[in-house]
Amino acid sequence: MKILVIGASGTIGQKVVEELEAENEVIRAGRNGADIQVDITSVDSIKEMYKKVGKVDAVVNAAGGAKFAPLTELTPELNEVGINYKQKGQINLVLLGLAHVKDGGSFTLTTGVMMDDPILQGASIAMVNGAVKHFVKAAAIEMPRGIRINSVSPTVVQESLDRLESFFPGFEAVPAKRIAKAYLKSVYSGQTGQNFEVY
Amino acid sequence: MKILVIGASGTIGQKVVEELEAENEVIRAGRNGADIQVDITSVDSIKEMYKKVGKVDAVVNAAGGAKFAPLTELTPELNEVGINYKQKGQINLVLLGLAHVKDGGSFTLTTGVMMDDPILQGASIAMVNGAVKHFVKAAAIEMPRGIRINSVSPTVVQESLDRLESFFPGFEAVPAKRIAKAYLKSVYSGQTGQNFEVY
Repeated sequence: MKILVIGASGTIGQKVVEELEAENEVIRAGRNGADIQVDITSVDSIKEMYKKVGKVDAVVNAAGGAKFAPLTELTPELNEVGINYKQKGQINLVLLGLAHVKDGGSFTLTTGVMMDDPILQGASIAMVNGAVKHFVKAAAIEMPRGIRINSVSPTVVQESLDRLESFFPGFEAVPAKRIAKAYLKSVYSGQTGQNFEVY
Repeated sequence: MKILVIGASGTIGQKVVEELEAENEVIRAGRNGADIQVDITSVDSIKEMYKKVGKVDAVVNAAGGAKFAPLTELTPELNEVGINYKQKGQINLVLLGLAHVKDGGSFTLTTGVMMDDPILQGASIAMVNGAVKHFVKAAAIEMPRGIRINSVSPTVVQESLDRLESFFPGFEAVPAKRIAKAYLKSVYSGQTGQNFEVY
């Protein structure tokens, strides 16, 4: 298969690429993408990427950020960061990518544990995760030409604990390599409309 | 109690006002608000509203739209309508309203059934509903001064069937008066972080 991975150089993205490249042609995209540079907050940049890539069998996105902030310090502007990046960025990858995915192909997006198991300073991130999860669930029933769509919801990643441990008290971190397996499940399985939790 | 109801002239909002006004001072707000005009897609308009209203015990929002569209015709721009109105509009009512709600007060927002039980043409609306539901769940653990936050998730409203019946095959419509009761539960109960389903 020809598989486009966005966020390919991130903690999770790297492991997804490692797992996929043994058996597939993987195109690595991202802000500093090895193969293609893309800024998913820009509609034009996404369009440009798909034009360069042509037709693919699967699109996997592991890119997308949002702001941690105490609720009383969360401004509309700070909240907008995640809406633009992790929410609209991912959803626009689908809306603008449908025509570039082959019959029976798939999209795999990324959500996260904080929507299900809230943490302090996590309201904005929970919001964008919830948006993506429910978009995936609803979009699945309308995907054309047998194309599937799922999301992966990782808990805190072992490799990011240095930076994030204090935000996730009592959470059991999971190595990126194990989280990557859920992306493989989405790409290779027949499932659609699912949010694969790796908690 | 002094209760600010936004979307007070809508199908659900009207019934919420009817139920609340027997025992409370209700301020009716909305695009054509009887007491205060507000456009919740505008941060400035929300700020202006709160300045006029002063301190309240509860904020109830029944305003907020999003676009129905077949997935293959859903553009980033069409998808943005719901993000600006039903998602950011509602969440900004909370972020900008915190300082205007008295100790122990509450916020009640609106989501909807389509995030849980997808319908054709409903992906964008499911997305914003999911965003609001998970924001509410996460924000609840950080609300200051005992302030609570919930959302109400209505199914298709009986009074809107003329316009919407074809979108909701097999759904059991519920009268707005019954849906309004879930808003009362949010305002009067001690519950927080909940999404009250009226399906």
